[in-house]
Amino acid sequence: MDQTQLRELLERVRAGETDVDAAVGRLRHMPFEDIGFAKVDHHRALRHGVPEVIFGLGKTPEQVTEIALRLQANASNLLVTRASKECAAMVLAAIPEAEHFPLSGCIRVWKDKTMRGRGKIGIVCAGTSDIPVAEEARVTAEVMGNEVFAIHDVGVAGIHRLMSNREKLMEAKVLVVCAGMEGALPSAIGGLVSVPVIAVPTSIGYGAAFQGLAAMLGMLTSCASNVTVVNIDNGFGGAYVASLINRP
Amino acid sequence: MDQTQLRELLERVRAGETDVDAAVGRLRHMPFEDIGFAKVDHHRALRHGVPEVIFGLGKTPEQVTEIALRLQANASNLLVTRASKECAAMVLAAIPEAEHFPLSGCIRVWKDKTMRGRGKIGIVCAGTSDIPVAEEARVTAEVMGNEVFAIHDVGVAGIHRLMSNREKLMEAKVLVVCAGMEGALPSAIGGLVSVPVIAVPTSIGYGAAFQGLAAMLGMLTSCASNVTVVNIDNGFGGAYVASLINRP
Amino acid sequence: MDQTQLRELLERVRAGETDVDAAVGRLRHMPFEDIGFAKVDHHRALRHGVPEVIFGLGKTPEQVTEIALRLQANASNLLVTRASKECAAMVLAAIPEAEHFPLSGCIRVWKDKTMRGRGKIGIVCAGTSDIPVAEEARVTAEVMGNEVFAIHDVGVAGIHRLMSNREKLMEAKVLVVCAGMEGALPSAIGGLVSVPVIAVPTSIGYGAAFQGLAAMLGMLTSCASNVTVVNIDNGFGGAYVASLINRP
Amino acid sequence: MDQTQLRELLERVRAGETDVDAAVGRLRHMPFEDIGFAKVDHHRALRHGVPEVIFGLGKTPEQVTEIALRLQANASNLLVTRASKECAAMVLAAIPEAEHFPLSGCIRVWKDKTMRGRGKIGIVCAGTSDIPVAEEARVTAEVMGNEVFAIHDVGVAGIHRLMSNREKLMEAKVLVVCAGMEGALPSAIGGLVSVPVIAVPTSIGYGAAFQGLAAMLGMLTSCASNVTVVNIDNGFGGAYVASLINRP
Amino acid sequence: MDQTQLRELLERVRAGETDVDAAVGRLRHMPFEDIGFAKVDHHRALRHGVPEVIFGLGKTPEQVTEIALRLQANASNLLVTRASKECAAMVLAAIPEAEHFPLSGCIRVWKDKTMRGRGKIGIVCAGTSDIPVAEEARVTAEVMGNEVFAIHDVGVAGIHRLMSNREKLMEAKVLVVCAGMEGALPSAIGGLVSVPVIAVPTSIGYGAAFQGLAAMLGMLTSCASNVTVVNIDNGFGGAYVASLINRP
Amino acid sequence: MDQTQLRELLERVRAGETDVDAAVGRLRHMPFEDIGFAKVDHHRALRHGVPEVIFGLGKTPEQVTEIALRLQANASNLLVTRASKECAAMVLAAIPEAEHFPLSGCIRVWKDKTMRGRGKIGIVCAGTSDIPVAEEARVTAEVMGNEVFAIHDVGVAGIHRLMSNREKLMEAKVLVVCAGMEGALPSAIGGLVSVPVIAVPTSIGYGAAFQGLAAMLGMLTSCASNVTVVNIDNGFGGAYVASLINRP
Amino acid sequence: MDQTQLRELLERVRAGETDVDAAVGRLRHMPFEDIGFAKVDHHRALRHGVPEVIFGLGKTPEQVTEIALRLQANASNLLVTRASKECAAMVLAAIPEAEHFPLSGCIRVWKDKTMRGRGKIGIVCAGTSDIPVAEEARVTAEVMGNEVFAIHDVGVAGIHRLMSNREKLMEAKVLVVCAGMEGALPSAIGGLVSVPVIAVPTSIGYGAAFQGLAAMLGMLTSCASNVTVVNIDNGFGGAYVASLINRP
Amino acid sequence: MDQTQLRELLERVRAGETDVDAAVGRLRHMPFEDIGFAKVDHHRALRHGVPEVIFGLGKTPEQVTEIALRLQANASNLLVTRASKECAAMVLAAIPEAEHFPLSGCIRVWKDKTMRGRGKIGIVCAGTSDIPVAEEARVTAEVMGNEVFAIHDVGVAGIHRLMSNREKLMEAKVLVVCAGMEGALPSAIGGLVSVPVIAVPTSIGYGAAFQGLAAMLGMLTSCASNVTVVNIDNGFGGAYVASLINRP
Repeated sequence: MDQTQLRELLERVRAGETDVDAAVGRLRHMPFEDIGFAKVDHHRALRHGVPEVIFGLGKTPEQVTEIALRLQANASNLLVTRASKECAAMVLAAIPEAEHFPLSGCIRVWKDKTMRGRGKIGIVCAGTSDIPVAEEARVTAEVMGNEVFAIHDVGVAGIHRLMSNREKLMEAKVLVVCAGMEGALPSAIGGLVSVPVIAVPTSIGYGAAFQGLAAMLGMLTSCASNVTVVNIDNGFGGAYVASLINRP
Repeated sequence: MDQTQLRELLERVRAGETDVDAAVGRLRHMPFEDIGFAKVDHHRALRHGVPEVIFGLGKTPEQVTEIALRLQANASNLLVTRASKECAAMVLAAIPEAEHFPLSGCIRVWKDKTMRGRGKIGIVCAGTSDIPVAEEARVTAEVMGNEVFAIHDVGVAGIHRLMSNREKLMEAKVLVVCAGMEGALPSAIGGLVSVPVIAVPTSIGYGAAFQGLAAMLGMLTSCASNVTVVNIDNGFGGAYVASLINRP
Repeated sequence: MDQTQLRELLERVRAGETDVDAAVGRLRHMPFEDIGFAKVDHHRALRHGVPEVIFGLGKTPEQVTEIALRLQANASNLLVTRASKECAAMVLAAIPEAEHFPLSGCIRVWKDKTMRGRGKIGIVCAGTSDIPVAEEARVTAEVMGNEVFAIHDVGVAGIHRLMSNREKLMEAKVLVVCAGMEGALPSAIGGLVSVPVIAVPTSIGYGAAFQGLAAMLGMLTSCASNVTVVNIDNGFGGAYVASLINRP
Repeated sequence: MDQTQLRELLERVRAGETDVDAAVGRLRHMPFEDIGFAKVDHHRALRHGVPEVIFGLGKTPEQVTEIALRLQANASNLLVTRASKECAAMVLAAIPEAEHFPLSGCIRVWKDKTMRGRGKIGIVCAGTSDIPVAEEARVTAEVMGNEVFAIHDVGVAGIHRLMSNREKLMEAKVLVVCAGMEGALPSAIGGLVSVPVIAVPTSIGYGAAFQGLAAMLGMLTSCASNVTVVNIDNGFGGAYVASLINRP
Repeated sequence: MDQTQLRELLERVRAGETDVDAAVGRLRHMPFEDIGFAKVDHHRALRHGVPEVIFGLGKTPEQVTEIALRLQANASNLLVTRASKECAAMVLAAIPEAEHFPLSGCIRVWKDKTMRGRGKIGIVCAGTSDIPVAEEARVTAEVMGNEVFAIHDVGVAGIHRLMSNREKLMEAKVLVVCAGMEGALPSAIGGLVSVPVIAVPTSIGYGAAFQGLAAMLGMLTSCASNVTVVNIDNGFGGAYVASLINRP
Repeated sequence: MDQTQLRELLERVRAGETDVDAAVGRLRHMPFEDIGFAKVDHHRALRHGVPEVIFGLGKTPEQVTEIALRLQANASNLLVTRASKECAAMVLAAIPEAEHFPLSGCIRVWKDKTMRGRGKIGIVCAGTSDIPVAEEARVTAEVMGNEVFAIHDVGVAGIHRLMSNREKLMEAKVLVVCAGMEGALPSAIGGLVSVPVIAVPTSIGYGAAFQGLAAMLGMLTSCASNVTVVNIDNGFGGAYVASLINRP
Repeated sequence: MDQTQLRELLERVRAGETDVDAAVGRLRHMPFEDIGFAKVDHHRALRHGVPEVIFGLGKTPEQVTEIALRLQANASNLLVTRASKECAAMVLAAIPEAEHFPLSGCIRVWKDKTMRGRGKIGIVCAGTSDIPVAEEARVTAEVMGNEVFAIHDVGVAGIHRLMSNREKLMEAKVLVVCAGMEGALPSAIGGLVSVPVIAVPTSIGYGAAFQGLAAMLGMLTSCASNVTVVNIDNGFGGAYVASLINRP
Repeated sequence: MDQTQLRELLERVRAGETDVDAAVGRLRHMPFEDIGFAKVDHHRALRHGVPEVIFGLGKTPEQVTEIALRLQANASNLLVTRASKECAAMVLAAIPEAEHFPLSGCIRVWKDKTMRGRGKIGIVCAGTSDIPVAEEARVTAEVMGNEVFAIHDVGVAGIHRLMSNREKLMEAKVLVVCAGMEGALPSAIGGLVSVPVIAVPTSIGYGAAFQGLAAMLGMLTSCASNVTVVNIDNGFGGAYVASLINRP
């Protein structure tokens, strides 16, 4: 029941065409989603600048392309994450203005480039192998309307490189820090800055890294109080939260 | 080497009392921390309103009391977390203006009550057993200068209670959501709001809850993109990050 | 907004005292829970015979007693699980008609003894050490209005004892099977009967039993298709589901 | 020893051709399975409508086809789960009336379409990636003689979609709920309905999902009392138990 | 139905007092356990020398004493494992001929001292902390009628001590080897002897020993082919199997 | 230093050509392995009938073939386990009398067929998917000189099939029982027989089976005292120990 | 057979009292340990300065005191680790020159204070809660003859404090770094120095720290190549290896 | 700011061209890395003989070749680890003096062959399957300027082979011991020698080996005090630390 239908029902009550008992009956069972949907709309309005997002993993190229075409009709911006090469080729053939980021498997349609953030989002990664996750974060943060800078390859074992980037790090309103292996970088950076640090454990490493488990546990037990954690390899999620934090 | 010493050295260079080579030599070995310390001060200034914090677990009542007295001399606000009853008794005897929160084991000296947040922080917990963690979060968020509201006992299995708090939830600039067992509440709330949700898994539960592991894994794999996670039972950490997010 | 208020609003619309726009406005923001609450009531009605339940673990004797007194005012039947001895003493002092089951820590007020089940619920346990969990299941199944029989100590390594209970097992409409150690009993029983088997892993065992993990994994990978699993030591949950299955 | 042989033996005892001692001797060693087999038959009779089932994983196309042909000779209905494409091609060539469900890898021969259930079975899944598991559940529930409805893509983070399906959910006599990631959907649905909820964790997700472990632990520690759990990705098992629950 | 009843039935058939149909009917439902019981008896006969065993963990002193008294009436030998001090005191008061082994918590009544083994059982432990588990093994092996020798404190890191016991080790028909920490001793001994080695991981150690998990995994992946493993700290089980192996 | 050299040294001492001090010096540093080697030989003699064994996993076909040819020169019997198809083709080309067992990947040269066992070894497996592991066990037990019988597909959920094999099971001197999923079969069989049961967990199963972990933990916590466990999928190891147990 | 007996045998060979065959026979079975023992002695000599060590955990005060008295008779230096307070009191009463270190539970007799190291050993710990482990390391390193310095409380989240200790850190020949929580300190220090870093994970932390597991996995996956790891809380082991590294 | 710029600034201060305040201001913000870089150089100088190292895993052949060419311009020695065959082909085409080690995937340019170690490094491995890890260790130790010897295939279950290598083992200044399965070899060797043992768990094994977890836990809980551990399969890291230990 949408507002039009609700209005019609009330008009009929007013006109005496529907009696009060019947109206109470209908309204008591008034499907929640209809009122709710208004809220969702309002809610959506608050989220201006949030692109439509398709999680590509486990979907066929055909499925992704079809969903992308449908969503793109109504949305300024569109983001596909974890798309295979085949998938990317098909989407780019269908949507010529789409960009492809092969390292991370992102596909992006970025038409509304309004900047919406209060400050900059810094994307930091510990090693070159973490770059795909950092790229997913950067692509996400940009399409959500943020000024972004990236710092690569500043692991905790080369602390001089980290320290030489202090000034840069302190420019950020929020940081997304990607690290595999022992995942110590968010703690080290967390101690250098006073803004929130979103830690993204990566599955980089071998042996006792256990596909990101070591990094994940390390980040959750960080001795720096300004660190929070998202799922392993979840560059998108890290940047999504960072974007919300960066909103006015 | 502090600024005074640096200035003296440069004055001597200027006066020709120290030659350039010697000055280069001294400056090359100028202990990092001294320059760094200036930065720390500046940095500290940015963090106005962050209380001094003592993690009480594993410290004797005497140790906590001594540290509390020393810190309290220089700081407006002081927070002790995870203090035993014995510890609380000793600290309260020594610092009469301190408050004690027995459920969570927090002790707080709250002299500077300046509000610093942009909006409200909502603290939500899933069950009555999660209240101690939520209390730690509330006490922390308050002492860091935030307007706080708390919603208790809105588990995901009683979704009507959750839904009836939607309006309230939407007032928050950031939410701290504490849940044990399957830890599903942050996902459900994450879908209702468009602000960041800091998920705090709690060790509440038994059997397959594995002391908070089930909740922690669940929160990290949340299907809501605005959820990040801190350590199990870390109400302090959840509120700390929420406070930073709530800063202008 | 309850039905009375909704009716009043509609009456005012009918009477022309409230115009349609204002009514639409109020109804659009009509708190969900009020309509929802009606549903909850209806829903509750469907659940006739479900006792009020208090999970005693982590609550003080005072808390449990207070909640028990309040709930007991409105409910025929009341169940407290995992109550300590101190807690039981206090509840029994306050509610004289309550029964105490020391092995499992259950407390029960059983005033409405209406039988509601289609058939019998069989509660089976593998070893004498599993009896506390089985008792929690039996007490729960009884208070929910089921005819219950119990079979103790029929582990899979003593298959003759199991086989000699086949006839009994086949009387049940649904079985709750509690087992620790390797947790093989539900599989063996699942192969003998054609009704649902609710498997309850127990934390009985040591070493590689890992507090019920071995049993839990074993039950989840059961080769019998009629087995489902609840949490470790969750005799209450096993019997609760069994009771729902046994309803007409 | 079947009934005929048993009868012959007793006839010979009666006729004095076999003495009592010899008969006692034979009967004492009477192979268990022969008497038991009678029971199995009877037992099988109780299970009318349970199809013959082949678990396809790890069997060659030839093996599956051969077993399918043999079983199909005696059974009205046949279900193969987890069949590869090659396997499906071979079975469909051999049994023309078989249907193939490529998403889930099911093959079904559905000749006896008698409805045997008391009510409807609802199959719900959290995300589109969970559909293969839900399809396995639906195909199973149908072939076992149940009226089935399916609801897709109602994750806990989009609670409005879930709420808008409440009426539908309440039509079911039992629900099978498939979810990966944090696996929170069964808890949320468990709180909305008063019937048993069979939770099927799926291996959908990455990182901390640990191939379904996060969902499985979450479901086992559900705060909703009407939830039980089967193995990860076990759509068949979930529907099998649901079918038994739905029997009169 | 025992043999007497079976014989009576057959006599009645022979005498024509019971007709064949009735007899078939009764025999078809003849409780399994009765025939089975004959087998159990025969079976028990084969197990001559196997003591009655009570697993004391989780039983009250009263329960253990009562069971011990009842079993001891019919059995020559009795073994209680994992008995608390209180339990031991009560049992010894009730059964004066019982011995108590405080390190391991065993209580033994050893009246039938017949030697039944083909050769000797060697009980080896890696460190002095493993002695309680080794004692449980020794007490068990003795009461089951074996000649036993024990070698203590021959860890793999002191390989000279191990090598100096080679001759002794080679006297055994089967070895029970108890080790905590890294659990390497069974592998080293397995390479020195050509008889079966029953490895008993112990929970001795800390940190990465994870309560015996490290030792257990190490023993299961032993590079010596003659090693099998029982549960952590299961000295009884190790010796039980060793005794069976040592039987003629 | 072999015996010849030792004899020469002693002859020189006797002849006065080497003085005692020099001889003590040489003998004190006499390489251990030489004396040891005598022991190894003697030791090897005790192990008559143990074939040379090559673990094929991770070796190239060329490596396996070369080692097989070299070993086969001195040994009557040879066993290769876990050989790939390519490897098997190459070995069979080189050693025409070798047999290949494609299910398990075993290759066997069985020239010395002397029977060495005291009794029969029974190899049992729970499901058809466990047959490869059971085949590895059978091939191993045969080549080590044992009379072997095999029982397939007697899972614990079809307890009638298990019971109908009781007589057969009781013929064995030792049993090797292979099972995946919940791994309950060794417990059930352990309760039926009084001989040692070597349990071999298999990696058969999915989800919560965790590649054999569930079966392995279940077998280690078996409630049957006559069960010991070897590594997951280690059919060879199970049969090797069974063969040692079966030796006179 | 010791050297005297060996000499006597050879003298008898020389004198013709024992023939060569008999001597070969005896020498072939010459117990390994006797020759070996000579090597052990030599070996022990190489280890000059290694104290006798008693691991106190799980030993009674009486046992520790008795062993301490016996060992102390022959050794200059003695170290007891993990001693309880009761144990320490008893040992100090028996050995007046012993020192007690209550934080770590160490007891030390340090008579031979010879310095044996090439350089200094630095003991670093991340937080004040790690001090007990660091103290065990320091006490061990000292008694093994090393010059030791300690740096406390330089966690990776307070990188300025770490950097200000760079000069000090670079004085060490080898470092022992103790850290709990995420265990990142060894990586950070490993990047600053070019000497070996022995990482000691501590069990400090809660929740996802899992009793030191997070720190242990983090250290094993360190991105600094000069880091090796010992067991959780094993301050003794860390210092022991550091001492060996520091030997000339 | 490098030394030249620092000198210029001081010259300008001296010349009165820059006043002291301005100089203090610039120096206070003087980028840390510039002074730090001097230290890095000095530091690097200390590390003479440490080759440039590229971790090949997860890098494309093009990336590895480009980095190799760039590094090789400035460095005498270069090591690539975990290079694929394609990668090796490309690097060897570009750098003709490079050697390739196919078992381990190492590529090495070894121009500066200066020996820098105090003694020998022994590389030991337990089984032939561990040789690739041992090769990575050997190649690393050599290129870092150490005399290296290797002992292969001396598992703990064939203790005679280990004992026969005692003399050899005692020649080493430090040992790198690689073992999979139960990982017991470092403990056994640790008890034979008095030098540090760097244990490298390998992922060799199956089932309960859990990709090296069993070996890793075993090594961390070693009962030999001179054992430390690096990551699973980390032959490079083991040899790197060994090289540092072997430095004067």
